[in-house]
Amino acid sequence: MWKNNALTQDEVREQKRMAVLSAGAALFNQQGFDRTSLDDIAKSLSVTKRTLYYYVKSKDEILSECNWLAIDFLEEPLATSKIADAPPLERMERLLRSYIKLLSTDFGACLVLSEERTLTEDSRLALHAAKKNFDLAVRALIKEAIADGTIAECDPKIAAATIFGAINWVPRWFQSADAADWDRLSTEMLAILLNGLRAAPPKL
Amino acid sequence: MWKNNALTQDEVREQKRMAVLSAGAALFNQQGFDRTSLDDIAKSLSVTKRTLYYYVKSKDEILSECNWLAIDFLEEPLATSKIADAPPLERMERLLRSYIKLLSTDFGACLVLSEERTLTEDSRLALHAAKKNFDLAVRALIKEAIADGTIAECDPKIAAATIFGAINWVPRWFQSADAADWDRLSTEMLAILLNGLRAAPPKL
Repeated sequence: MWKNNALTQDEVREQKRMAVLSAGAALFNQQGFDRTSLDDIAKSLSVTKRTLYYYVKSKDEILSECNWLAIDFLEEPLATSKIADAPPLERMERLLRSYIKLLSTDFGACLVLSEERTLTEDSRLALHAAKKNFDLAVRALIKEAIADGTIAECDPKIAAATIFGAINWVPRWFQSADAADWDRLSTEMLAILLNGLRAAPPKL
Repeated sequence: MWKNNALTQDEVREQKRMAVLSAGAALFNQQGFDRTSLDDIAKSLSVTKRTLYYYVKSKDEILSECNWLAIDFLEEPLATSKIADAPPLERMERLLRSYIKLLSTDFGACLVLSEERTLTEDSRLALHAAKKNFDLAVRALIKEAIADGTIAECDPKIAAATIFGAINWVPRWFQSADAADWDRLSTEMLAILLNGLRAAPPKL
């Protein structure tokens, strides 16, 4: 770890800004955007509201920045999943594992807990585009896995929605600060979802 | 079908009241509770707001009645699932199929689309209790199916949350007035989820 005095002024500012965003995300997720004030965020950081304004303009800015950070975080695993270095189902598993890991963070949970109406028009559109993009990537992997015979014939749209429905629900019922708990959750959920895709045609 | 003149006054009133609730549910689901006024509901039924007040006291009453009706609808399949007339996984499949069918109706969709903050305290508590009850019934069936060897060892809480996450997401992305489309959706989703449970231990 660098000591503070080894950081430039810009780096210190950026670190503090991240602390503000992170504190905002944590409170939005816990008590909702509407019920969180800039005062609450300042209080949770033990600073004044005046100090906060040095880093962010508004509560809206905090929420949209949190969503941007989460989208950014997903970009690399998403790009990697498109490189055919492993069978499609394995790449999908890696991608979904990264996604669940992202949802274990305050920034990531914002992605699924933010209500549409609390987002600015710009954020809403960006978020929609990012989610659409992610959905299409998963559908493409499902199609590839059907083609290579790893999984049973299925409707990729329904399969992707089943996966996202299950995973996006997680921040609403699962809380843990322990990474091992999240790993276990990932393994259990992905076993059900991916084994379900692997299995022979519907036998109901 | 009975002709109107074969119905008692009370029956006619009840039919009309159901039409009001149904119109309310449809609008709440389409455009949200906040953005729906009693005027909108009256307009969609081609009656005056004054007529509406003969059947319901308020918008809140419509929402809570819709949720009550949906909870009632689920009671019978839930009770049936507890009678050991078939293997547990088969009973779970029947129960989840009834649930997806319920979500295809306007009353049912209300159950998952209503935001907490739009519900009165009483409705919120009743809804929580009903959902908890349903969750526990599904967990119990999962435990039974593990015990009888039909499905792999798993965490029943995680498995139930995976199922409910996937299914409760449906009204947010799937719309169709055609029962056959809903049947196909049920079959595809339940194939993934139940085959996933059936499959051998996690192989990731």
